[in-house]
Amino acid sequence: MSLDLAWLLLCTALVIFMTPGLAFFYGGLVKSKSVVSMMMLSFGSLGLVTVLWVLYGATGIGALGDGPISQFFGNPFQDFGLTESVTADDGTLGGIAFGASFAIITVALISGAIADRARFFPWLLFAGIWATLVYFPGQAWVWGGGWIGSGDGILNGVPALDWAGGTVVHQASGAAALALALVLGRRKVGFSKEESAPHNVPLVLIGASILWFGWFGFNTGAYGADEAQTSLIFINTLIAPAAAMLGWLVVEHFKEGKATAVGGASGIVAGLVAITPACAHITPLWAIGLGAIAGAICAFAVDLKFKWGFDDTLDVVGIHLVAGFVGCISLGFIAKYDAEGLFYGGGAGQLWSQFSSSVIMIAWAFAVAYVAGTVIEKTIGLRAKEEDEVAGIDQVLHGSEGYALD
Amino acid sequence: MSLDLAWLLLCTALVIFMTPGLAFFYGGLVKSKSVVSMMMLSFGSLGLVTVLWVLYGATGIGALGDGPISQFFGNPFQDFGLTESVTADDGTLGGIAFGASFAIITVALISGAIADRARFFPWLLFAGIWATLVYFPGQAWVWGGGWIGSGDGILNGVPALDWAGGTVVHQASGAAALALALVLGRRKVGFSKEESAPHNVPLVLIGASILWFGWFGFNTGAYGADEAQTSLIFINTLIAPAAAMLGWLVVEHFKEGKATAVGGASGIVAGLVAITPACAHITPLWAIGLGAIAGAICAFAVDLKFKWGFDDTLDVVGIHLVAGFVGCISLGFIAKYDAEGLFYGGGAGQLWSQFSSSVIMIAWAFAVAYVAGTVIEKTIGLRAKEEDEVAGIDQVLHGSEGYALD
Amino acid sequence: MSLDLAWLLLCTALVIFMTPGLAFFYGGLVKSKSVVSMMMLSFGSLGLVTVLWVLYGATGIGALGDGPISQFFGNPFQDFGLTESVTADDGTLGGIAFGASFAIITVALISGAIADRARFFPWLLFAGIWATLVYFPGQAWVWGGGWIGSGDGILNGVPALDWAGGTVVHQASGAAALALALVLGRRKVGFSKEESAPHNVPLVLIGASILWFGWFGFNTGAYGADEAQTSLIFINTLIAPAAAMLGWLVVEHFKEGKATAVGGASGIVAGLVAITPACAHITPLWAIGLGAIAGAICAFAVDLKFKWGFDDTLDVVGIHLVAGFVGCISLGFIAKYDAEGLFYGGGAGQLWSQFSSSVIMIAWAFAVAYVAGTVIEKTIGLRAKEEDEVAGIDQVLHGSEGYALD
Repeated sequence: MSLDLAWLLLCTALVIFMTPGLAFFYGGLVKSKSVVSMMMLSFGSLGLVTVLWVLYGATGIGALGDGPISQFFGNPFQDFGLTESVTADDGTLGGIAFGASFAIITVALISGAIADRARFFPWLLFAGIWATLVYFPGQAWVWGGGWIGSGDGILNGVPALDWAGGTVVHQASGAAALALALVLGRRKVGFSKEESAPHNVPLVLIGASILWFGWFGFNTGAYGADEAQTSLIFINTLIAPAAAMLGWLVVEHFKEGKATAVGGASGIVAGLVAITPACAHITPLWAIGLGAIAGAICAFAVDLKFKWGFDDTLDVVGIHLVAGFVGCISLGFIAKYDAEGLFYGGGAGQLWSQFSSSVIMIAWAFAVAYVAGTVIEKTIGLRAKEEDEVAGIDQVLHGSEGYALD
Repeated sequence: MSLDLAWLLLCTALVIFMTPGLAFFYGGLVKSKSVVSMMMLSFGSLGLVTVLWVLYGATGIGALGDGPISQFFGNPFQDFGLTESVTADDGTLGGIAFGASFAIITVALISGAIADRARFFPWLLFAGIWATLVYFPGQAWVWGGGWIGSGDGILNGVPALDWAGGTVVHQASGAAALALALVLGRRKVGFSKEESAPHNVPLVLIGASILWFGWFGFNTGAYGADEAQTSLIFINTLIAPAAAMLGWLVVEHFKEGKATAVGGASGIVAGLVAITPACAHITPLWAIGLGAIAGAICAFAVDLKFKWGFDDTLDVVGIHLVAGFVGCISLGFIAKYDAEGLFYGGGAGQLWSQFSSSVIMIAWAFAVAYVAGTVIEKTIGLRAKEEDEVAGIDQVLHGSEGYALD
Repeated sequence: MSLDLAWLLLCTALVIFMTPGLAFFYGGLVKSKSVVSMMMLSFGSLGLVTVLWVLYGATGIGALGDGPISQFFGNPFQDFGLTESVTADDGTLGGIAFGASFAIITVALISGAIADRARFFPWLLFAGIWATLVYFPGQAWVWGGGWIGSGDGILNGVPALDWAGGTVVHQASGAAALALALVLGRRKVGFSKEESAPHNVPLVLIGASILWFGWFGFNTGAYGADEAQTSLIFINTLIAPAAAMLGWLVVEHFKEGKATAVGGASGIVAGLVAITPACAHITPLWAIGLGAIAGAICAFAVDLKFKWGFDDTLDVVGIHLVAGFVGCISLGFIAKYDAEGLFYGGGAGQLWSQFSSSVIMIAWAFAVAYVAGTVIEKTIGLRAKEEDEVAGIDQVLHGSEGYALD
């Protein structure tokens, strides 16, 4: 076995562990009567998206070609079920497993917007469609030699920087979350700042901790970075969320007079999201700065849903879309390695690429989610019945409450 | 340090983490008044089996010789306490640690059958005896050049395939679980499908997630697989449980009208068990198929205990014995690498070896567990007093309830 | 990437994961009305100490020089924010991340002594001061060529052995915990053996399990150990806590008539602490012995606080200070590799070095903690108001209870 493959497989295991982590983070944040449903939305993605990725995602849709369609959506029928890839005498299948771990969590992230009111099997249908039309091709647009990222950068000839998923992971899932929140509408009860206390803070922190732990694999897993770059990525993945946690808690302290555990955990996630596109491209000092800024901005951004009235229940927009955008745009200013931002003598072209790649991904992810969500809601129904939602959907949809502590 | 050793130690850490994962999976499934006891049964195995493995398991009983006894039970007195192994100038001790991690969890698995009613120290006595007589020699029968597996395959000259423990880990623990369930008899209260709701679903899912995470180490940890094979093992360990989760949930949906979280978690475990013997030997497409089938079969199998009246409380039989058997037997049909099953032009000999090795392991594991369990129960008593069981054994046996949430 | 760096980064991720593990271990042990506060003390260390380590700890204070001050406290202004280190073309930043993970958890360990009654931001202030004056320089005194350990061993010319932190991690944090317990005084309610039941046993065990899992990284992470030594460290990190768990439970069984889950978890931690300085230097058989002894001793030591009246709420003294001391001193007797203890023909010099290095570290850690804690308490106030403490500090200080399970 080669060291590159060993590291990749380790990172894959770490990233796969993140989706359960997300299930616990999300699960702890909702009310106790919908914790089972909430966690199942993430676990459903683990089940379904994994299988689809292997059947036609990794080497089908995700393998772009030159044709008018295949340069955007590959060809789902080539290497179906990895029948060719399995003959490779190298680590090809390991690379596909790594890709699976990203696809799984990206889809699972969306589910935070529809907490307390989504039905499991219709959600799986949505997950399959969105993964197929957005994540599977989108990851190739960014990293697979496609038109946004590592390829020609057709927008202005400057490839957008996005090391590990500020666009196709975080902004895409955040935009889809916004779409679903609009399609499903607000919860019958509980949509107010006062009512948003988590039902299980230790569970929230367990989830956030697993996310952070796995994120080291997320950011360092890319094939072939050298010693210095891998070390840079690693330490930035440590200090940006640390600084973001402090940034969020300080804002919260001055805004609300208290530093909450949910704020700390959310700050960690915001910092991780912001550093995801940037981890390989900026100095540690800037990683601290980016983290602190992202944490502080998101601490404000999560209040927008109350002002604007969209029930993005667990703040996928306020954290993943916002911090993903902050991280991607920041590279137009503070990128130092692989390309230069404005602060290091680079031109405005990089900033424009960062901005336009973000907007494209947001638009596509939002549009697909909005249409698919609407069609599913109007046909088989994505949202639970009103009486079930009010009573708590766990017992009705999943046959059991989360706890029987008597 | 060599890469092989580094990978082995990483896998060892992952597999050691699985036994706490099992403690949480099992702990969440029982009633809240016996969660402490349930978890302690797994942690007790972590304590005791580890020490015995180092004293006389790894290089004593587990090191088969040629004599009439030592070809089955090695020699417990050679290298006692690793006094010789410690002088090795290579990774010998690392390999022994890897073996320990398997021994620990195999014994811990059994405890699911005797939930709510087992006493801690008598369980430790059972654990020590069963580990000594079944797991320590059994792992050498399969992987240590012994008569079932990697050696001569004395049954018909065709060594049975079992990559990571379908026989000596899962079928053996499942058979021992059945024996103990029969020896101890049913719980006074709670043995019915209606009463089997878990007390803490998030805890169940935390446990299942740690199990999955660690299982990547379990299946890929074997020394010396090459790039392609390790990658195949890894991706199969990802997609079989994913498909099994879907398989279980779909069966449950049609059978009961709901997809439960316990079903999802149990499906994951069933898929992991089934792929354990098969992970290196089948294609990814077959891994999806095997997972889906194992998940669906086990979703039916866990009802047998109610029909037949044995109180295998947490379904060690219905999941580990059944899925272990499915996985081992499947190789007689779908094995493609290292040996061929019937579907790939192999003969019936492989199927017979898969079958007979399974039966031998089941029989031996069951017999030892039945006799040891009976003797302990009749002498010092393995089962808690009736009044303690009804009241909940945590307070009486372990001095504390699981929760004080007031 | 090199294998050495890959292993180091893996270990770093594991050790970073330990501090959340500690948060859960500590969080589960307190009452439910202060679980949020308890966990936040650890997460606060993750935020603040990480940033300080990067700004001026790793390559500033922690990089000793020859001058009268800089041989003890380095120079905080050199390489501020890693501005020089970032230009290294090797794994320098990875090594700094590894160091961060140790700094973070050492500080977090202290917080167990002041459970239920500490304010968050004043605790952060204490954490920053103590890290700056004790851990940042202290780790260099031991491992950075400084006067206690790997350097000249100025006390008697025999460098003290401390593989992974018996002195500067465990005895230092234990001594600081004692100081803070004395400064803050006892809790208003709850300081008695009868009242010390944990509020969430599964959470305690989740924490202990993550600690053990991460500890494999803690002990094996040091750069450049060879195959045999790394394997020895690994297996000792497995069997010492296993034996310590058994040791603690047996003592508890004879003393109290029951084996508790908290006892099991505490035994694991005591074994891990004791093996930390010794893991590379003793045989597996002695690791079992050391673990069993440390577990048994600590099972008695945790009662001292009731006898002597200091409210070290979660037994940082009884476990980390005591087991750290046992582990360090034991090397004067049982060290076999790198140096010899008395049992292997070594002289009394090693024992003296083990003793004096422990005493020095305890004294310095205690003194700084006592002074800093007193100044903070007398000025801005480290302890919560009496009425808040009695009501439970989570709602008042952190805006939310730990659970809303209704």
